Amino acid sequence: MIVLMHAEASDEQVDVVVGRITSRGLEALRLPGGDHVAIGVASAIRPEERPELESALRALPGVAHVAHVSRPYKLASREFHAASSVVEVAGAAFGGPGCVVIAGPCAVESYPQILASAQAVRSAGASLLRGGAFKPRTSPYSFQGLQLEGLEMMKAAGAEAGIGTVTEVIDAHDVETVCAYVDMLQIGARNMQNFPLLIAAGRSGHPVLLKRGPGATLDEFLFAAEYVLSQGSSRVVLCERGVHPLDRTYMRNTLDLNAVPILKDISHLPVIVDPSHGIGQARYVPAMALAAVAAGADGLIVEVHPNPSEALSDGSQSLTPAAFADLMQRLPAVAQAVGRGA
Amino acid sequence: MIVLMHAEASDEQVDVVVGRITSRGLEALRLPGGDHVAIGVASAIRPEERPELESALRALPGVAHVAHVSRPYKLASREFHAASSVVEVAGAAFGGPGCVVIAGPCAVESYPQILASAQAVRSAGASLLRGGAFKPRTSPYSFQGLQLEGLEMMKAAGAEAGIGTVTEVIDAHDVETVCAYVDMLQIGARNMQNFPLLIAAGRSGHPVLLKRGPGATLDEFLFAAEYVLSQGSSRVVLCERGVHPLDRTYMRNTLDLNAVPILKDISHLPVIVDPSHGIGQARYVPAMALAAVAAGADGLIVEVHPNPSEALSDGSQSLTPAAFADLMQRLPAVAQAVGRGA
Amino acid sequence: MIVLMHAEASDEQVDVVVGRITSRGLEALRLPGGDHVAIGVASAIRPEERPELESALRALPGVAHVAHVSRPYKLASREFHAASSVVEVAGAAFGGPGCVVIAGPCAVESYPQILASAQAVRSAGASLLRGGAFKPRTSPYSFQGLQLEGLEMMKAAGAEAGIGTVTEVIDAHDVETVCAYVDMLQIGARNMQNFPLLIAAGRSGHPVLLKRGPGATLDEFLFAAEYVLSQGSSRVVLCERGVHPLDRTYMRNTLDLNAVPILKDISHLPVIVDPSHGIGQARYVPAMALAAVAAGADGLIVEVHPNPSEALSDGSQSLTPAAFADLMQRLPAVAQAVGRGA
Amino acid sequence: MIVLMHAEASDEQVDVVVGRITSRGLEALRLPGGDHVAIGVASAIRPEERPELESALRALPGVAHVAHVSRPYKLASREFHAASSVVEVAGAAFGGPGCVVIAGPCAVESYPQILASAQAVRSAGASLLRGGAFKPRTSPYSFQGLQLEGLEMMKAAGAEAGIGTVTEVIDAHDVETVCAYVDMLQIGARNMQNFPLLIAAGRSGHPVLLKRGPGATLDEFLFAAEYVLSQGSSRVVLCERGVHPLDRTYMRNTLDLNAVPILKDISHLPVIVDPSHGIGQARYVPAMALAAVAAGADGLIVEVHPNPSEALSDGSQSLTPAAFADLMQRLPAVAQAVGRGA
Repeated sequence: MIVLMHAEASDEQVDVVVGRITSRGLEALRLPGGDHVAIGVASAIRPEERPELESALRALPGVAHVAHVSRPYKLASREFHAASSVVEVAGAAFGGPGCVVIAGPCAVESYPQILASAQAVRSAGASLLRGGAFKPRTSPYSFQGLQLEGLEMMKAAGAEAGIGTVTEVIDAHDVETVCAYVDMLQIGARNMQNFPLLIAAGRSGHPVLLKRGPGATLDEFLFAAEYVLSQGSSRVVLCERGVHPLDRTYMRNTLDLNAVPILKDISHLPVIVDPSHGIGQARYVPAMALAAVAAGADGLIVEVHPNPSEALSDGSQSLTPAAFADLMQRLPAVAQAVGRGA
Repeated sequence: MIVLMHAEASDEQVDVVVGRITSRGLEALRLPGGDHVAIGVASAIRPEERPELESALRALPGVAHVAHVSRPYKLASREFHAASSVVEVAGAAFGGPGCVVIAGPCAVESYPQILASAQAVRSAGASLLRGGAFKPRTSPYSFQGLQLEGLEMMKAAGAEAGIGTVTEVIDAHDVETVCAYVDMLQIGARNMQNFPLLIAAGRSGHPVLLKRGPGATLDEFLFAAEYVLSQGSSRVVLCERGVHPLDRTYMRNTLDLNAVPILKDISHLPVIVDPSHGIGQARYVPAMALAAVAAGADGLIVEVHPNPSEALSDGSQSLTPAAFADLMQRLPAVAQAVGRGA
Repeated sequence: MIVLMHAEASDEQVDVVVGRITSRGLEALRLPGGDHVAIGVASAIRPEERPELESALRALPGVAHVAHVSRPYKLASREFHAASSVVEVAGAAFGGPGCVVIAGPCAVESYPQILASAQAVRSAGASLLRGGAFKPRTSPYSFQGLQLEGLEMMKAAGAEAGIGTVTEVIDAHDVETVCAYVDMLQIGARNMQNFPLLIAAGRSGHPVLLKRGPGATLDEFLFAAEYVLSQGSSRVVLCERGVHPLDRTYMRNTLDLNAVPILKDISHLPVIVDPSHGIGQARYVPAMALAAVAAGADGLIVEVHPNPSEALSDGSQSLTPAAFADLMQRLPAVAQAVGRGA
Repeated sequence: MIVLMHAEASDEQVDVVVGRITSRGLEALRLPGGDHVAIGVASAIRPEERPELESALRALPGVAHVAHVSRPYKLASREFHAASSVVEVAGAAFGGPGCVVIAGPCAVESYPQILASAQAVRSAGASLLRGGAFKPRTSPYSFQGLQLEGLEMMKAAGAEAGIGTVTEVIDAHDVETVCAYVDMLQIGARNMQNFPLLIAAGRSGHPVLLKRGPGATLDEFLFAAEYVLSQGSSRVVLCERGVHPLDRTYMRNTLDLNAVPILKDISHLPVIVDPSHGIGQARYVPAMALAAVAAGADGLIVEVHPNPSEALSDGSQSLTPAAFADLMQRLPAVAQAVGRGA
């Protein structure tokens, strides 16, 4: 940690900062020169100590800025876990040599609908089925999902089609129930900083698909992963799904593929991409899916609906089974071109 | 609702759109001319029908865009509730002629700390005491709040100092408990779209201070209010607290005062402003507080700590009691200048 | 064009809007129903009439919103030019079956430096050499380029290495001079709305590489292209180079690959991508370059410097010749995987 | 300047960084401890040396981040110019005790229009008249201004009404001409980084009203001012006019009033605010104008048109003369409430 003083800071103010650091048993180094004084903390600070120390130093008179030298999260960082993690879910290996594809409808609407989806995505080559039973919707007047009944349909459809399942959980108190029905928990973008939910998901030991919030920096995203990991779980898959768009005419969100190589570099966790929410229009989804894999993503999560124009939600961004099958046929060549097994 | 077709859309595609609208008992009007065809829905659509209809129409071939003519929320909109609402909490009237100020520390840290805060803000003229017992923190290693013990301290301090209380709730299942201790529930920016929490807060009947998410459009913000209102509550106060900053060097967030006159225009709900989180540095807080009142805000929520450099969180944005008292002395002149009783 | 009235708009206000439209010889259609009245303009409006009509209608009492049905630019739009354009520059065909790569240093620093760059990128397979002689720099204390001397070096180096050349022009009055030295003009992101410069570039007839401004919507970007095209030129290549980043810790900009399939869909102009400015760190450039091609880009522009740590500008985002050669070897497999000849 | 090394950086990489610094005659200090090594430059670096040194250090292997301790601009910074600057223009004193108001139409459309505007704003109490002769417009089909004829009308109207004048210049080669007609040059938001224009304006010695670009950080804004100041001019007034909006439904831009107290703190230059472009709708302009003054702005620039619904540009954000006169009557009370003479 480095503390930068204002140009006009007095020697007394510098002394107070140094005193605050050394009173915690840490070594402080004065770094003179230039127009300002900087003070370095020349000892390792425990992660749990950092936020308080930073907050305290920032509030001292004369302090201009407090900068971190090392990243403030630990379990999610590659600095302390050099090898890439592999998260296995129902036979699929996120972070392994292959590209794992999750596909299915936005919401479970009926048993025939989810079963048809399961069979279609399975036969096209997807590894896991997605489908929402608890739907977080911007409007209270939108379809909110079939809840428990939807979970039962997911489980039955997955079993009948022979495919693992992923569903979103939006309340910490539902985690245990949801774990009983599906193979992987999804924490949605709107809940990326729902801390009780992150903690409950981490405690469950179930694999967690954690979506980046649309306004989250990568550090905030990895802090959210750290919440899950800090409960003893190691089974977290990161998912980029688009940030707030500059251009709202043509995009629902701005799928931020920059996050893929950066997250792969700074974290050991697997990274997948959701092009459906990311760009928000079905006809642009295949291009962004292929781009995600070329950027180094470990997998995809794609919305597929047997009949998008009848969908109760997100119809305009859902691929038809035929369009999805076409994408799945084009994917292996791109995957191989970037050195990944199909 | 108006459906815009692509320039190259066929007559058959237009017919399908018209058929989809009329099959719901709604009247469709073709609007020819220019390079495109547009189709208007010439009947009132119930709010609960809109999202599905919009989603279905968007997914039809040939459709370029679906535009809303009326706002999709109802209870939060001034269109259907012309008179400004007044929300009363412990003797303070948000949306009334005066300017209501909530003040206190980010977090309850100890009984002496919260009592000193309560007495200081009370004597400076604040109407309500803020203080967090459940703290949503970016890092799992940051102080997470005193939880139930913190609630008890809030209640006792408020009673001893003779001031009403506000605290944040972050889990739907805690709403009932929190209502037993404080006069007003706060739903924080990170939870603006935590729908189970919004619903639980609405059901409680307790007044709700709803903060705008840092990436939320004003429509998304009012939809969140609509979730609370749809449960039968009418006691919602909106709070602007800053959106994602373009400039992260000097601002924690970009306090968006534009939201104040716009929200007052399109909604009947009271609107207050949080300059402390909004700009994030104590020395800029008074300027933004005065600007908020000049922009027409119905009140403020300000972080005040007896000793900011000892605060366990947000010390750098907390005013000292002296700085807060100074602000409170300058506030009435600005309030009066914009036609508001002190 | 469609005009949406406020819910409380009076019949007289509607009449005024209708009158304003019909006074221009255009047909107005009232679209009743729902809570609002909408008024459609049921005649084709000439592009040069639209901005004034829109501005006038927006300012009338009772008007809530004015929406466009057709896009307001014409020459850049695919609606009026269905076939994809091919722009030929010094033997390279942007928008043709192949993937065109422009490469070279940020700035021309010396003749040996630009010649070594030209030879290195040529031998690795690049089609055109980039290099800045006029450098727009955030700080007046940064290296501003070698100006005319730099142009001469570019021309000589291109001739000696047998490769076409691209350089940025930042002043309308320099366009003629720059055209005498290089094969393609670049208009940089900061100048995307420097209208005198766009007009001068259009008048020159020289091919123009137009970079998207970091805050520009796609419509604003295509309007900038329209300025060039409106001068009679048809040789414009669009370049996505990153928008303002949400996360400034890890990215210089957010390379917005979503723009690629969308621009290819709504415009007939070729689209290339600049991953170097887009993500801003050399070690992430290859991943984003491959992703751009997988997303459907017609080409790339990549910063390459013989010795990045000695570069006078942008060293941290420049590839070494060896890293660039490696990227060029990996590119054809991705290009072929998305159906593009190498 | 402080260089942070990656956790895994080798001792040799640290040595190379230290060597690079000391080879320039600067002193380097190693700052060990924690997980990383940091290296401080313990000598003052001349502003003109910083960008190159930073670029070179960033490109060295093992370097994670380069942080500035002091601000990289000098002439615009309060660190080196503690007293607030006052810029006098035609009798008005920006940065003095009063609040200076510039008002007038977006564009000069005819002599009667600009004269009526001049008389209206003068009689309501404005100090300077604005009006555009060269209009930078997003669309090439929009009204581009009356050019030289417009300048002549401005000069004549200002003289006849007895009020100083401000107009925008968009081409470096027009600066001299424009100076002959008006009292103050405006450099618009789209040209904030048009460096040839900034330099030409600086050389002219004429007062410059410099608008913040909609995507500019405050450091980028002050760098643009530094370009003007570096030419020997000291007469720059900063103008906040809105940044890219998160919410494009209700705002044209997000007027960023946070910039006001921050710019007043870090720079000695006067700061004014443009609420008209900032929020973009006439009915919200007065609230934002009052808020700007409460935040500490030294003045305002407001669009006023004798007949907004007939305006050739920006009609929807222009105040009528009556609405402007009303605002001017409310302004002094707010100005006085924040300690400013009317």
